[in-house]
Amino acid sequence: MTDFQQGLNKCRQTIDDIDCQILDLLAKRREITTEVGRLKSEAGKPIYDAQREASLLAARRDEAEKKGVSPELIEDILKRIIKDSYSTQKAAAYKCVNPQCNKIVVVGGKGQLGRVFVDLFTRSNYNVECLEENDWLNSETILADASLVVVAVPIRLTVDIIKQLKHLSDNCILADVTSIKESPLQAMLTVHKGPVVGFHPMFGPDISDLMKQTIIACDGRMSEQYQWLLEQFNIWGAKVYSVSAKEHDKAMSLVQVMRHFSTIAYGKHLMEEGANIEQLLEMSSPIYRLELIMVGRLFAQDPALYTDIIFNNPDNIQMMKEYAQRFLSLLNEVERQDKISFMQEFETISDWFGEYAQTFMLESRAMLAKANELKKR
Amino acid sequence: MTDFQQGLNKCRQTIDDIDCQILDLLAKRREITTEVGRLKSEAGKPIYDAQREASLLAARRDEAEKKGVSPELIEDILKRIIKDSYSTQKAAAYKCVNPQCNKIVVVGGKGQLGRVFVDLFTRSNYNVECLEENDWLNSETILADASLVVVAVPIRLTVDIIKQLKHLSDNCILADVTSIKESPLQAMLTVHKGPVVGFHPMFGPDISDLMKQTIIACDGRMSEQYQWLLEQFNIWGAKVYSVSAKEHDKAMSLVQVMRHFSTIAYGKHLMEEGANIEQLLEMSSPIYRLELIMVGRLFAQDPALYTDIIFNNPDNIQMMKEYAQRFLSLLNEVERQDKISFMQEFETISDWFGEYAQTFMLESRAMLAKANELKKR
Repeated sequence: MTDFQQGLNKCRQTIDDIDCQILDLLAKRREITTEVGRLKSEAGKPIYDAQREASLLAARRDEAEKKGVSPELIEDILKRIIKDSYSTQKAAAYKCVNPQCNKIVVVGGKGQLGRVFVDLFTRSNYNVECLEENDWLNSETILADASLVVVAVPIRLTVDIIKQLKHLSDNCILADVTSIKESPLQAMLTVHKGPVVGFHPMFGPDISDLMKQTIIACDGRMSEQYQWLLEQFNIWGAKVYSVSAKEHDKAMSLVQVMRHFSTIAYGKHLMEEGANIEQLLEMSSPIYRLELIMVGRLFAQDPALYTDIIFNNPDNIQMMKEYAQRFLSLLNEVERQDKISFMQEFETISDWFGEYAQTFMLESRAMLAKANELKKR
Repeated sequence: MTDFQQGLNKCRQTIDDIDCQILDLLAKRREITTEVGRLKSEAGKPIYDAQREASLLAARRDEAEKKGVSPELIEDILKRIIKDSYSTQKAAAYKCVNPQCNKIVVVGGKGQLGRVFVDLFTRSNYNVECLEENDWLNSETILADASLVVVAVPIRLTVDIIKQLKHLSDNCILADVTSIKESPLQAMLTVHKGPVVGFHPMFGPDISDLMKQTIIACDGRMSEQYQWLLEQFNIWGAKVYSVSAKEHDKAMSLVQVMRHFSTIAYGKHLMEEGANIEQLLEMSSPIYRLELIMVGRLFAQDPALYTDIIFNNPDNIQMMKEYAQRFLSLLNEVERQDKISFMQEFETISDWFGEYAQTFMLESRAMLAKANELKKR
């Protein structure tokens, strides 16, 4: 064996030893955080504690600097460990904010998104019942003494199903979790005289907990009566963002509808141009790889969901036409070889983004590094 | 102090102790990996060793499972640590694959991308000289005994500058690093009789090393004479992907040109619709947040670069018109409320993506988790 090989082997042995010690510490840490989860859920405290997390990270960053370790390294590692410990803590129960609450009925509670809420309410010690397609004959009995009814059905059915919720008690809170808000909210206000609120959970059904996720809330009426529900979302780790249904739908048409639709159009474009996905991936920089992933992932999902979102609001058609016009008018500048106008447009948009452009640039670096790590050699 | 608070404080103290021990182990590990870097560069071995990395990760995953720690957790942490250790090793020198090599001239070596190559060649012990705008009077002297000339200037200047490289020695390798390949390659083959190769480095100037990055190589002529250069890229950690210039340009027009252009159009759309970026961010799910970041980051960059890429090839205009047509024809289905056709289109594209859709779905989860972590509360 050469000196080089001997020296290398010795170093590698030491590295393996260190990594095993890290592993032991992780196992020990996991025991302690499970204990913390148990203590907190007994005391009815939320699992997520932003202040503790921030001070823990700041303290370790400081020490890292002193010890010649990169503060970003220890922060990234600890964040990853903390994320893991949340998921081990999540099996534990959550505090029940409103123990006086009678039955909670989730209409469509066996569907993908409904299931997430049924699970969370159950683990928070509420009495939860599902109302599925075949249960409508018994719906009056099921709904009779509900304190909260959550509609979690596909968009295309939402308004029709809301219209059938006529006999709720006056104090019952009526809510939905559809990704559009104006029409369901209107339907809920019409069918029910009590407290009404529309939610848009900004996450898919494939998340493991609500930690740091956003739920948008659009008030219908009597907001004081459903405050406990927003608090319950906080206990689960989610952040509630309140906005009017109109503003919500406008924002969603800009991001959700527009992006989904143009992603589908781009998928079609790649297909019809006969693109070779494997080759494109091989040739990709982290950024194109990420973009391809974001395009392709959509096609692994339910066509009906996307079709419903896109077809829901006729206003979206006009908005997308305007996008297409903007696209073509920019393209016209390219065709006229008018580099000067094109660069001016670029700079105007850049000014409009302002500081966000720079912030996004920095944030995207971490993302792109991650995309490159996922790349198989 | 309540029992809960006492119990919690005790746990937190233990967690802090564990985290400090992890920090100490990281500091120690860093010392050892720096030593590995030194050994390797003395022996002229590449820093990146895919096999060692894979076996290290597999061994720790196995042990994690036995100790009740999530194998994904230890893998993510170790990958992050390994990434960090590459960056501490990078300060060291790289093996010089071709010690017989005479001078290397980087035309535009003081530019953003040129600088990356000048740095890497220098750290690999080559004799590197830059040729900048003001040096053209002396260019014959500078270029006289060069073994390799790399053109690293903005796209719009590339071909003109190549045309001026008339007096290279016959054995000199002529290469460029522009993000288009057909026209520069043609120009290089015309001006020079010796070995010619075009490169497209698939990364921006803001990376810290070439570990796992891709460089596309388009052969011009006499490939056996520039093999050492491809090997040198490997030593730096990069992967070389060979493809014809024509195929390269076609693939890039599908990903690079098309995506840059539609991102600019979407930025314009957001601006003209009066979008509120702050509100959009507040309301964003991880996926929209990621998409906004990817849009906004473009506007933090050089307008001239993007303009050059988009305006370079008139074929791109036709291709983007076809995209716009596809977009509008899909939109027409929405306008006609033809959900059935739309869903059929979706499914056809989905079939075309095949298994990639599912793979991308899985990969994107890790990305989206990262995007959500970056979110400030």
